[in-house]
Amino acid sequence: MLLLIPGPVTTRPEVRAALNVDIAPWDFDFRPIYAGVRHKLLRIAGGVEDEHVALPLPGCGHFITEASIRTFIPEGGRLLVPMTGGYADRMIRLAREAKRVPVPLAIDETETIRPDDVAAALEHDPSITHVGLIQSETASGVVNDVDVIGAVVRGCNRRMIVDAVSAFGALPMDISQHPEIDATVFTANKCLEALPGMAYAIARIDRLEQCTGNAASWSFDLADIYANIAKRGDGRPRFTPPAQVVNALNVALDVLEQEGGREARLARYTQNMRTLYDGMARLGVRPFLHPDHQGPIIVNFHAPDHPAWDLQHFVDALKKRGVVISNFYNTPTPGFRVGCIGAITPADMAGAVEAMSQALRDIGVTIKTGANHESGS
Amino acid sequence: MLLLIPGPVTTRPEVRAALNVDIAPWDFDFRPIYAGVRHKLLRIAGGVEDEHVALPLPGCGHFITEASIRTFIPEGGRLLVPMTGGYADRMIRLAREAKRVPVPLAIDETETIRPDDVAAALEHDPSITHVGLIQSETASGVVNDVDVIGAVVRGCNRRMIVDAVSAFGALPMDISQHPEIDATVFTANKCLEALPGMAYAIARIDRLEQCTGNAASWSFDLADIYANIAKRGDGRPRFTPPAQVVNALNVALDVLEQEGGREARLARYTQNMRTLYDGMARLGVRPFLHPDHQGPIIVNFHAPDHPAWDLQHFVDALKKRGVVISNFYNTPTPGFRVGCIGAITPADMAGAVEAMSQALRDIGVTIKTGANHESGS
Repeated sequence: MLLLIPGPVTTRPEVRAALNVDIAPWDFDFRPIYAGVRHKLLRIAGGVEDEHVALPLPGCGHFITEASIRTFIPEGGRLLVPMTGGYADRMIRLAREAKRVPVPLAIDETETIRPDDVAAALEHDPSITHVGLIQSETASGVVNDVDVIGAVVRGCNRRMIVDAVSAFGALPMDISQHPEIDATVFTANKCLEALPGMAYAIARIDRLEQCTGNAASWSFDLADIYANIAKRGDGRPRFTPPAQVVNALNVALDVLEQEGGREARLARYTQNMRTLYDGMARLGVRPFLHPDHQGPIIVNFHAPDHPAWDLQHFVDALKKRGVVISNFYNTPTPGFRVGCIGAITPADMAGAVEAMSQALRDIGVTIKTGANHESGS
Repeated sequence: MLLLIPGPVTTRPEVRAALNVDIAPWDFDFRPIYAGVRHKLLRIAGGVEDEHVALPLPGCGHFITEASIRTFIPEGGRLLVPMTGGYADRMIRLAREAKRVPVPLAIDETETIRPDDVAAALEHDPSITHVGLIQSETASGVVNDVDVIGAVVRGCNRRMIVDAVSAFGALPMDISQHPEIDATVFTANKCLEALPGMAYAIARIDRLEQCTGNAASWSFDLADIYANIAKRGDGRPRFTPPAQVVNALNVALDVLEQEGGREARLARYTQNMRTLYDGMARLGVRPFLHPDHQGPIIVNFHAPDHPAWDLQHFVDALKKRGVVISNFYNTPTPGFRVGCIGAITPADMAGAVEAMSQALRDIGVTIKTGANHESGS
């Protein structure tokens, strides 16, 4: 079974095998693994020891995003959020419920964020201290350039929190070049190809020290997680972590290195995406995004304009053929989405495209394709 | 290797085997498992459908405790916490940082809470709305009777939050008899004998509905978790859960039922505790608690009064003999602690006592035992 939901993803057997062990999280045998994962993540992020730190938090992407907002923005502080789609909506809600003031910046969610729009919004409202950037919008599939938006934020002398949940490990992130970034946050179960249950932030140490007391939540206080590491040492968890998930992530990070690191992974995902995007176009299924704005992580397609189309029927038919996709969509118009990430190859993706072609036929959807396509159904 | 830390615990191979699968958390094949776990937990708690609900939260015990405090006690609300030990300290800090007002009630932490003390404190301060009860204090090993303390709270017309983290699944909990309980909270990795990464609250539905808007945290808002279940159905997670951990918990709950349920598990743990408590006494190692106050979950021992005693040396020597215990202690005086929970039998525990006897000898600790003991070293 191929998971093509955009995380949790298909994982490798050796990664899952590392789950199958009882672990005492405070044991001296486990501490090097717990600390080692943090150091490996810091390196992937381009972090500088003594300047940045990787902070672990049990839970999901929402949790580490909320923790970053609480830690780096005081109550009542203002956060500009370019409205990239569903995950920007979620950042807005996380901030608002935590009594921070989110300021939405309307954009066209089928395109990358225009840096001039961010600059104008920041110039217009000097009370905004932070920009919350969704690096890869899991809803639309659009990827934003951290270097481009970061330069604007830095130029305006503001700070940035990056939601890199469906980006980290594949898309570029060199935090050493981004003094404006307070934290970049992500989970184990997307481009790192491990299992869900653990989230991380790569954060600036100076900012963590300045932000003690902001969080109004012990659990979600990244400054306290850092203080715990500084005081009690590198490998001792603050609270009980999902140790098996961390153990599997450790293996997954070795797999990433063996693959050739972040760049090699991005190259594979990009090939996966191209195979999918072009293959579906040949079937006559229209992608949601123009190729210029299509990121390599996730592709949305418009629902075929055919009376037999039914998302759940399609998902069920596809599953019978060995491919699992989301049974919901996050785009403004009906469609379906396919993840290009996880332990899958372009050959797997070619097989998935074939399975989608057959599944469309199974549910009685036929699509008239244009003359310029190579094939149709 | 036998884990005798008081959670995460030793688990059974069939429980861990359920981790080794890729899962799409929103898939229709997984929804019955996700929802089924919740219903099984509700039954173990004595919950009444339409009156109570089991609410899942990714993460650890601290998270679900904070979520309960935030949800059921508004900002500025007052919470009486009998100071049972380390985990009461943690509840105090979780409440205070969340801007609730914890009111500590000093007690003797080597004894169970005296109900009259709780009644007097509540009568003295009518502004206290809630009592936060640690059912099994993982620091000391003392277990408190929810029926006894609950009756006082109910009589004083106040409400209660029960930290059942190291209790649930073994110690008694019949929430149908406790209308004063807003929530009882626990994790998968203690007496339920599954893996860490997932926490749950069993909560009153009427109170969840009354408490909408209290939490000031979307992630930790139990009222929203309930609203999501009410609106979108039983088996659809709000955020990405650690699906493998839930899948393993599902198997662990079947194992619990096969064992004969909560009562049978408590009987086994009680035998484990007796085997440990009496066996160590025969070695001349003094327990921290008097037998009348010793719970079945965890036993603390005083550090042997011998110059060669060193906790880490003892832990290391014991590990070489196949038994892992905590390398820290949570009691006011130096000692060590041993968990009696997990997939272990009294025979395993007898072996662990023998290993401890040998480990003491390995590190050069000899103890003069009283004449009334059967054996000594």
